[in-house]
Amino acid sequence: MSETFVIAQGGGPTAVINQTLAGAVLEVRKRYPGARVLGARHGVRGIRDGNFVDLSVLSEQQLRLIAATPSAALGSTRDKPDAAYCETILKGLRQAGTTAFIYIGGNDTAGTQQILTEAAGKDIAFVHAPKTIDNDLVESDHTPGFISAAEFIAGAFVSIDLDFRALPGIYVGIVMGRHAGFLTTAAAAWKQDDGSAPHLVYVPERAFSAKRFIEDVREAQSRHGRCIVAMSEGVSGEDGRAVVENLVPPDRLERDAHGNIRLSGGELGMAIEQLLRDGLPGARARVDTFGYLPRGNISTINATDAREAFEAGTFSVEAAARGGGSVALQYIDGITSPQLVPLTSVAGKTQHLPSDFLLPDSNQISAACRSYFDRLLPKQFAVADPLI
Amino acid sequence: MSETFVIAQGGGPTAVINQTLAGAVLEVRKRYPGARVLGARHGVRGIRDGNFVDLSVLSEQQLRLIAATPSAALGSTRDKPDAAYCETILKGLRQAGTTAFIYIGGNDTAGTQQILTEAAGKDIAFVHAPKTIDNDLVESDHTPGFISAAEFIAGAFVSIDLDFRALPGIYVGIVMGRHAGFLTTAAAAWKQDDGSAPHLVYVPERAFSAKRFIEDVREAQSRHGRCIVAMSEGVSGEDGRAVVENLVPPDRLERDAHGNIRLSGGELGMAIEQLLRDGLPGARARVDTFGYLPRGNISTINATDAREAFEAGTFSVEAAARGGGSVALQYIDGITSPQLVPLTSVAGKTQHLPSDFLLPDSNQISAACRSYFDRLLPKQFAVADPLI
Repeated sequence: MSETFVIAQGGGPTAVINQTLAGAVLEVRKRYPGARVLGARHGVRGIRDGNFVDLSVLSEQQLRLIAATPSAALGSTRDKPDAAYCETILKGLRQAGTTAFIYIGGNDTAGTQQILTEAAGKDIAFVHAPKTIDNDLVESDHTPGFISAAEFIAGAFVSIDLDFRALPGIYVGIVMGRHAGFLTTAAAAWKQDDGSAPHLVYVPERAFSAKRFIEDVREAQSRHGRCIVAMSEGVSGEDGRAVVENLVPPDRLERDAHGNIRLSGGELGMAIEQLLRDGLPGARARVDTFGYLPRGNISTINATDAREAFEAGTFSVEAAARGGGSVALQYIDGITSPQLVPLTSVAGKTQHLPSDFLLPDSNQISAACRSYFDRLLPKQFAVADPLI
Repeated sequence: MSETFVIAQGGGPTAVINQTLAGAVLEVRKRYPGARVLGARHGVRGIRDGNFVDLSVLSEQQLRLIAATPSAALGSTRDKPDAAYCETILKGLRQAGTTAFIYIGGNDTAGTQQILTEAAGKDIAFVHAPKTIDNDLVESDHTPGFISAAEFIAGAFVSIDLDFRALPGIYVGIVMGRHAGFLTTAAAAWKQDDGSAPHLVYVPERAFSAKRFIEDVREAQSRHGRCIVAMSEGVSGEDGRAVVENLVPPDRLERDAHGNIRLSGGELGMAIEQLLRDGLPGARARVDTFGYLPRGNISTINATDAREAFEAGTFSVEAAARGGGSVALQYIDGITSPQLVPLTSVAGKTQHLPSDFLLPDSNQISAACRSYFDRLLPKQFAVADPLI
C-alpha cells in the first residue's frame, strides 16, 4: 500500500513549530519515496473540511525556509474535538487515504490523537509531535518551542534589570502560562547573582497573597534599590481562583468556548499596578504584560530549540512506523533525544514546575532551577558590572 | 591646563547609550593622554551631589564590555534642571576642574546644556551627545538608540503577523512615543507586501477617531482575514488631548513632576480593547502594550546602531574641542556621520514624523517611510510564503 501522511498543527504557535513540520516531511520523503504528504490547514478543521495543501510538491529549499519561519505555516486551531468531532476527522482521514496522521501540538493535541486511536482501527498510525512554549508536557524534559520563548523572557529580564538599575523603581513583567510556571522562571535563566533580576518570581503552582507580595516587593526594593518581578498570568490565590478573577470585575473577564478565563489580556497587570499603588504609595511602579511577544518571536529563535524541533519531526515518522504514540524530548545520560511514549501518558495531563524550582519559603528560584536553565539556555553574552 | 572631561547620561536608557560613553572615553584617552574622565552618576544629579566615578582607570576591555551592555551604565535621571539647579551643576563642574561636559541624552538634555552654556563662561565646553529611541531630535537623520528599538518593533510585528495568520483575529501593539510616531512606524520596517502587518498605523501626529478606527479595523479584517495594528501610546484626538485622557477615568491617570500624563502603562491598551469589544462584538481581539521591552533590549542590539552610537561618542570629544554644541547624525551624500550643530537648534524641540510618512487619506505607511526604513534597518531574513 502506498503511504499517505497527513500533518497538522494545533494550539498556540511557537518559533520552531515549522521545524517539526519540515523535519517530518523531509523524513517521509527519505523513507518512503513517492509517498504523499498532505498538510491540513488550521489543524483538524482542515481534515474535517477537506482543506489540504500538498506538501509533496515543495522543494527542500522551500521546506527549509518554512522551517525557519515562526508560527504555524499550516495555520492552527483551538478546537478540542470530542468523540463526535473525531468521527468527522476520521472520515476525512480515510477519504484522503491516510496511513499516518502526525499532529503537532500540546497536551490537548495528544488528547485528540488518543481519541482517534481508540476510534480507529490499526490502519492509521496516530502520532503526537510535541510543541508548546509552556513546557508543560509530562514525559518530556522540555518541549520544542520552550527554549526560544524562554530566551525572549531571559533577555527581557536582563534588559529590564539594567533599565531599572539606571532609573530605579519596581517592575512587574507578566508572562504567559495558565497552569505551569516554567516560562516565568525563565526570567531567571540569565540572572547574574543574588542582586540581579528577577528578585521575585510568582507562578501558578504557588498560592499568591497580595499582602505578602507587597511585603516582598518592599523588602527587595530596600535591599537592591529596585525590584524586578516575574509573574505568570495564571497566578492563583489560596482559594485556587486565578488572581485576575478576584481582582477584576466579572464583566471585564472574557471566557473561551471551554469556559476558561482569558488570561492574556492586560487585566492582571492593571490589577497588580493598583495593588502596588495602594500598598506602596508614591513608588515608581511599572507593569508590562508581555502577551504574544515571546511566543514565536523571530528575534529570539534559539538554535538548539530549532534543531530539537526538527528532530522531533523526523522522529515522528519513526513513531508512525512503530504504530503511533507521543513523541517526547527526554534527557538521558546527558543527551536530549526524542523518545516514543504512549499517548495515554501525555494526553490531557499537565507537567507542573517541580516544587524544588523555587525556594521553600520565598518566591525566589532555587539552584535546581538555575541548573535546568544553565543546561537548556546557556548565557550567550557578558554584561558589564555596574558603575553605580 | 590639564583636561578634565565629565560625562553623564540622561533620560530613558537605550540599547547603545554606553557605546557613546565608551566612544567618548576612548577618544579622550587618545587625544589627551593623561586627561581625567569622570562619570557623573545618575546624570546631572551626580554633578550636583559630587557623585563621580573615575572612568580614567577602566581598561579598554572593560570599556568595550560596558559599551556592549544596554542601558545607562552611569545611571540616569529624569531631572530637567531650571536655572537655579543649573547653578549647582556649574558649581559641581567647577569644583571638579571640568574643562568639558558631555551629556548624552535627548532634547531635554540639549536644553540643560544650553542653559549651562549661557550661564558659564568660555572655560567649559558643553556638548550634547544624542540618544533617544523616539528619534525625535531635530537636525538628525536618526538618533542613536532608535535603530535597535526599531529592530525590536519590526521583528515583533513580523512575528505577530505570522501568529495571527495561523490563529486569525485583531491585534493592537502599543508602542512608546508621546509626541513622535517614528518607533510606531518601525512596525512596518519589514512589512512584506500590502497583505502583511501592520495593516494600520496610528501615531501622535495624526488625530485619532474611535469611530474611524473601528471602521478601518473592520475593513482590514475583511480584506486580509486578520488585522494587525501599530499604535503610539501618545495618540491624540481631534481636540489634541491624548486618547488615554478621554478614555480613562482621571483617577487612574498618573502624572509626572512636569504634569505629563504617564502613557507607558496599560490604560490605553485596556481602553482600546474595550473599543474593539463594543465596536466589533464577538471578534477575537488582543492588545499588547510593549512598554519597556523595546527600549534597551539585549536581544535586538543593532550593529549599525552600536557603531553609530560609538562614533557619536568619539565625535563629541571633537565637538568639545570646537567649543561645544550638539552632535547630530546627519545623512549627507549617502553617508551617515556625526555633525556639530548649535545647541539652540536642538534644545527643547521635537522632530515629528514627516507628514508624507503616512498616506494622506489612510492610516498606512507610504513609500517614503518604506525607503527610510529600508536604509536604516534592512531586512535580515526571509519569511516563507503562507501555505494557508
